[in-house]
Amino acid sequence: MKKFILIPDSFKGTMSSAEVCDIMRRAILAHFPDAETISVPVADGGEGSVDAFLTALGGEKVVCTVKGPHGHPAESFYGLIHGGKTAVIEMAAAAGLPMMGDALDVLGATTYGVGELLLRAAKSGAEKIVMGLGGSATNDGGCGAAAACGVKFYDADGNTFVPVGATLANIAKIDASGLDPALRGITIETMCDIDNPMYGESGAAYVFAPQKGADTQEKITILDNGLRHLASIISRDLGITVDTIPGAGAAGAMGAGMVAFFGSVLKMGIETVLDTVDFDTLLKNADLVLSGEGRIDSQSVRGKVVVGIGRRAKKQNVPLIAIVGDIGTKDDDGDMTAVYAEGVTAVVSINRIAVPFKEAKPRAKNDLYHTVDDLMRVLKIGR
Amino acid sequence: MKKFILIPDSFKGTMSSAEVCDIMRRAILAHFPDAETISVPVADGGEGSVDAFLTALGGEKVVCTVKGPHGHPAESFYGLIHGGKTAVIEMAAAAGLPMMGDALDVLGATTYGVGELLLRAAKSGAEKIVMGLGGSATNDGGCGAAAACGVKFYDADGNTFVPVGATLANIAKIDASGLDPALRGITIETMCDIDNPMYGESGAAYVFAPQKGADTQEKITILDNGLRHLASIISRDLGITVDTIPGAGAAGAMGAGMVAFFGSVLKMGIETVLDTVDFDTLLKNADLVLSGEGRIDSQSVRGKVVVGIGRRAKKQNVPLIAIVGDIGTKDDDGDMTAVYAEGVTAVVSINRIAVPFKEAKPRAKNDLYHTVDDLMRVLKIGR
Repeated sequence: MKKFILIPDSFKGTMSSAEVCDIMRRAILAHFPDAETISVPVADGGEGSVDAFLTALGGEKVVCTVKGPHGHPAESFYGLIHGGKTAVIEMAAAAGLPMMGDALDVLGATTYGVGELLLRAAKSGAEKIVMGLGGSATNDGGCGAAAACGVKFYDADGNTFVPVGATLANIAKIDASGLDPALRGITIETMCDIDNPMYGESGAAYVFAPQKGADTQEKITILDNGLRHLASIISRDLGITVDTIPGAGAAGAMGAGMVAFFGSVLKMGIETVLDTVDFDTLLKNADLVLSGEGRIDSQSVRGKVVVGIGRRAKKQNVPLIAIVGDIGTKDDDGDMTAVYAEGVTAVVSINRIAVPFKEAKPRAKNDLYHTVDDLMRVLKIGR
Repeated sequence: MKKFILIPDSFKGTMSSAEVCDIMRRAILAHFPDAETISVPVADGGEGSVDAFLTALGGEKVVCTVKGPHGHPAESFYGLIHGGKTAVIEMAAAAGLPMMGDALDVLGATTYGVGELLLRAAKSGAEKIVMGLGGSATNDGGCGAAAACGVKFYDADGNTFVPVGATLANIAKIDASGLDPALRGITIETMCDIDNPMYGESGAAYVFAPQKGADTQEKITILDNGLRHLASIISRDLGITVDTIPGAGAAGAMGAGMVAFFGSVLKMGIETVLDTVDFDTLLKNADLVLSGEGRIDSQSVRGKVVVGIGRRAKKQNVPLIAIVGDIGTKDDDGDMTAVYAEGVTAVVSINRIAVPFKEAKPRAKNDLYHTVDDLMRVLKIGR
């Protein structure tokens, strides 16, 4: 075994994907000291995504100051990869929940700074921007970001304003003609792993706003009605139907805003990662791909990281082993036939003793190391 | 992969070694349909040991009636393997705890029927007898078995009697000259996996008699003093020091009796199994050995089944994978360096989701199947 590709998702709440890569790499090199290991920690668009791309591909982290979600200046960053041809932004870096500290304010929080990052990235000369959603403090449908880039929002009196969650219902008209030219002709791809629509009971306000500080039904209703109104104005003034797009509700309906204001597509995060790192080329001459995630589930093969990778690996006949926390759930029989069919050669759990998750979690890094170590021992048998 | 040897211990309380063999075999044949699989369910000397040997080697199960531990006739059996040259006896078949039903009586129970089995086996023409200890209802130091084979026990009045736990202290003299000639010149090997001495706080009475019905300190003291007395008479009349032999306390001090009255050696069960099935010959041309047990522990490598097998496999450079329940304990880091050093190539846990043992147990057979299935998938990568 000479060439290994390590491309795990995070084990949510237990290990970041970068940590998983490091542990896998150590265990592999203990048995195959001359092997080439390529680490691609999988980004999901949320916090850490820029670093994940920089780890996989190298590049430059650009630090800058933008307007934070609270309206005050805040330090932020974006990444440049592919020699500056591609910029990577995680919206959490300019509108992230932790940036609000204890003063959560989903009705007032803005994505304005995310727009500033988009503009800076576009003006840096990037030909493509990858936007990661997730971890946001906002529910403004991306209006703040759009305003930062030149889109005009008018109220009933004809005055321009920058809408926030609480004031979406005041939008009387949208004029997108002023969008900064730097953003035209650039491909923008938005990483989005959730299916939620823009509004309604499965929408941004009902599902995600409570954890951002919408602690009463009244606040949720204001936000939900605002998004519903925004969708109708977008439809009327921009001619784009966003409300039913799966993922439009992601990140306080930033998904909808990316489509409506920036002409972006919403794409499964893993597909963006695989395309961005040119996974198909990495696969050439690879002997083994190791992926992984906190739990693999044969029921929902859609959008799962491991399965997305499996489909690519299968095309080139490169074996893929998934190292996971749990295989299936307490309620199924752990049969992975559907997963194997998608190009996953074998599934291995890091659970090494029978303990509940609460006790397994603090052991996870150690157990992962030993599991990969044993896996390498087994692989050497086959040689 | 063409030739697999399956030689697991039982997963105590969860799966018998024969069940483990069957599950492993099914999973292997799903991937290597033309492979030869040799199943050697490991016997520990306790209940099921005769069947285990018959499964591994073929042979004849001889059913007969002997005196049960309660003194009444009971159906029993022994096994003949190697074309009748070797007999296998499990003492649980003639003095087993379940044979007592609800009327446990460790002070009165006898191993007389075990002696009858020994005598029948010897008279059948067997050149060697393998005796399995474990699961006994008795604490008679093997005096019952010895009496059945012609050894005479005298009390202070010069009368012969068959000592039981309660009457060991009445033995004034032992005369072994009447031992049936059929038993002379026969090799008797006793499987014994425990270290307990004959008497004292780690001895048979203190450690094992309570679970056989010695429910007061007074009863335990009677049994312990009886064994202490027996040891002194054995030493004086037979010239054999048994009290400090590790394992002398096994099965109500049947370990001591096997040594003193039958000239047997006490041997780790796994070593007896490996010798009896001629494991070293089985290993020739084997591609892989799969073993397993409920838990593997790097701390105590002595006497563990997997490690015993590893030492043999290592000599012939045949890889060995241990499929186990738990790898290590909650209190260690699961490092198996000491186990690998003993010839275990890799260790794989059947735990596939993070649940406590109570929940893992009913899933175990299913989890074992899937674990071996995934292991075969990994092994095929290496080819």
